[in-house]
Amino acid sequence: MTERSLDALIEALRRLPGVGVKSAQRMAFHLLQHDREGARRLAVALQAASEGIRHCERCHTFTEAAVCSTCLDGSRDARQLLVVETPADQAALERTGSYRGLYFVLMGRLRPLDGIGIADIGIQALLERAADGVVQEVILATGFTAEGEATAHVLAQALKAQGLSVTRLARGVPAGSELEYVDLSTLAHALSDRH
Amino acid sequence: MTERSLDALIEALRRLPGVGVKSAQRMAFHLLQHDREGARRLAVALQAASEGIRHCERCHTFTEAAVCSTCLDGSRDARQLLVVETPADQAALERTGSYRGLYFVLMGRLRPLDGIGIADIGIQALLERAADGVVQEVILATGFTAEGEATAHVLAQALKAQGLSVTRLARGVPAGSELEYVDLSTLAHALSDRH
Repeated sequence: MTERSLDALIEALRRLPGVGVKSAQRMAFHLLQHDREGARRLAVALQAASEGIRHCERCHTFTEAAVCSTCLDGSRDARQLLVVETPADQAALERTGSYRGLYFVLMGRLRPLDGIGIADIGIQALLERAADGVVQEVILATGFTAEGEATAHVLAQALKAQGLSVTRLARGVPAGSELEYVDLSTLAHALSDRH
Repeated sequence: MTERSLDALIEALRRLPGVGVKSAQRMAFHLLQHDREGARRLAVALQAASEGIRHCERCHTFTEAAVCSTCLDGSRDARQLLVVETPADQAALERTGSYRGLYFVLMGRLRPLDGIGIADIGIQALLERAADGVVQEVILATGFTAEGEATAHVLAQALKAQGLSVTRLARGVPAGSELEYVDLSTLAHALSDRH
């Protein structure tokens, strides 16, 4: 069983994040055995997305137009700019239904160990975006990981130097939690940030 | 962030086995952000494989030709026919380098709970293949799971009724194992199959 187009498919599937050689084999066999329609549909979707999707000129999220529909939405509050790491984070915040301002998507975070520095996460573009004269508050919603916190710290310094008001998502006890099962660091933050 | 081609890509990725909505999002974002070349290559590979790959007329494995290269290999021992569930199992056995006969790939196993019965796993094609007058021994190498064992049992009965010699892969202690850590069922089989 050394078929070139099968090997090429397995090799191409392995480039997906989190997919090793066993998973890639399983995916290839599944598609060929049970879901050729799915294989064709995925091929078309990949082609369309890799040709059609670019970055919004204003917020850097993925979009098919020059400016994404969120940035064009006149009903949103342009005085608030919320900074997230990824479009997935943006989608999660949108699902809460409790934010009506605009976004800026870093498309990454500081990862000094992987050589991802300040210039790589579009901090300059964010500073220019935030300096449009309309934005009054920049809400930092990078992750509460070491890298996300470091990113927030660096961004906060740069934004405050421009005279902008900078806030950070609250840390605290997750909804539905019993206190005894919450980790100590979260509990300590919830205590110090009590209101 | 409601871009149609992005949503279509995430939806198409979700059809892959073991990929939920979060993984599909992560894969789509990774491809679009870091590996558009990989996205294009995967699209081409999917298209090529879904158009070019079919089943070998003799052993049912995936192949681009009418008959696969293994079945066409005159140096292999046509008197032995080894039955596996999937091309991945076949590949694993090939890697051992200790089998020089031919294969028959069921492309599945009996899964009564999912409605996969005897007719669905190509048992008729196997009986015809094994009755070519050359095959002397059919080696059953379906998995040692409940479903794999049931499949082997049904196949053994049907093949023996045709007067064929049927064997099964040995069960026993895996190489490199300390006896105390081997599960009891395996140990019991290793004891009863001692030689």
